[in-house]
Amino acid sequence: MKRAIKALVFDAYGTLFDVHSVVSLCDEVFPGHGAALSQLWRIKQLEYSWLRSLMGRYENFWHVTESALVFACKTLRLTCSPAQRGRLMRTYLALKLFPDVREALTALGDFRLAILSNGTPRMLRAAVKSSGLDGAFAHVISVDGVEVYKPSPGAYELATETLKIDKPAVGFVSSNSFDVNGAKAFGFWTCWVNRSDGYPDELGFMADLTVKDLTELADTLARSRVVVSPRKDRLR
Amino acid sequence: MKRAIKALVFDAYGTLFDVHSVVSLCDEVFPGHGAALSQLWRIKQLEYSWLRSLMGRYENFWHVTESALVFACKTLRLTCSPAQRGRLMRTYLALKLFPDVREALTALGDFRLAILSNGTPRMLRAAVKSSGLDGAFAHVISVDGVEVYKPSPGAYELATETLKIDKPAVGFVSSNSFDVNGAKAFGFWTCWVNRSDGYPDELGFMADLTVKDLTELADTLARSRVVVSPRKDRLR
Repeated sequence: MKRAIKALVFDAYGTLFDVHSVVSLCDEVFPGHGAALSQLWRIKQLEYSWLRSLMGRYENFWHVTESALVFACKTLRLTCSPAQRGRLMRTYLALKLFPDVREALTALGDFRLAILSNGTPRMLRAAVKSSGLDGAFAHVISVDGVEVYKPSPGAYELATETLKIDKPAVGFVSSNSFDVNGAKAFGFWTCWVNRSDGYPDELGFMADLTVKDLTELADTLARSRVVVSPRKDRLR
Repeated sequence: MKRAIKALVFDAYGTLFDVHSVVSLCDEVFPGHGAALSQLWRIKQLEYSWLRSLMGRYENFWHVTESALVFACKTLRLTCSPAQRGRLMRTYLALKLFPDVREALTALGDFRLAILSNGTPRMLRAAVKSSGLDGAFAHVISVDGVEVYKPSPGAYELATETLKIDKPAVGFVSSNSFDVNGAKAFGFWTCWVNRSDGYPDELGFMADLTVKDLTELADTLARSRVVVSPRKDRLR
């Protein structure tokens, strides 16, 4: 059976946008603590999204991100004023793109392109706009529509519903291994963008393709389109 | 309104049993890496329990704990043979009790005492037996019965069903702040055993009482029983 991927759905934070582009501002606000704050902030942001989903106590990703920042500052013994917190939070509205993203998205233009992200619609609109990606995506989908975070199946289902597409026609692309596991368990073809050269999470669902960046994904998909059909097996 | 707690339900790992009592064996197997391995192992163990619950892909806690160990070893570039892995896993069957536990449980003997844990029935039976706590608990309850991990409400509900008791009559005791948040959101009175002198998670649900160890919990509950009724308010 040949696989026919029609749409590519991208995770946003960590995959397109570099969440650690907050380091420099963190370091400006709290000299010498930028990397540690950025790291703990991100860890707790993800933890809180999973825990609130499990508790059945959804709050949107702006709220979750701010709660994670509050916890991270307290734990690192950094006194963070409301003004400083506001300034750090606003970095999420203008995160830097990874350097490979723009060109790869252009190369992948034959596919329908979408984002499926934990971020709120406002956060996603701002990040897409500030990075100049307006118009690159047919849909920018926020899990806020179903009030549950990835890797819940309900989050991935929002993509198939919005795109009006069957699961096997979706290629899901994420740098977050837990997200790849969730998308694969849901039924998507998956690509893990292993940006940090790490090991995949041991959650039972392997990525169909692992690449180091989106350039490699675009190259691989381009090759698979020109080769004769049996070679398409490698994309399964 | 006076609160009448009739049963105390304890989390097991981190609250009664010291999960970091694996450090010395980790250090024996991988000299110089014991603390780092123990820490990453525990972090991923919890993460995987949350992620599998969210994905709707439950595997029991023995499986989750072993998966977390595999990931932790790979990430720390430690080559772990099946025999070494088996040896490390078996530490979970004989974890050390925290030094305050035994005496505090005796002092709390007027309450119905139970454990509600992510651990499998076999893991819990072994840990209770090896630490000499046989007979201390009326019930040792494993979430394996509902196949979802804490902080899902379904896990806490297993305690009220097993004990045949109303939520407000349960005092839930945990050193894991996420667990306290989940139990409080479910409707239990909660005590956070802040063993590591940290900050509570920013998940919206504060503990009713925070103590440094179980001795302080026993002392506080003992005082509240001899004072006149209005003072019982402090336990709300």
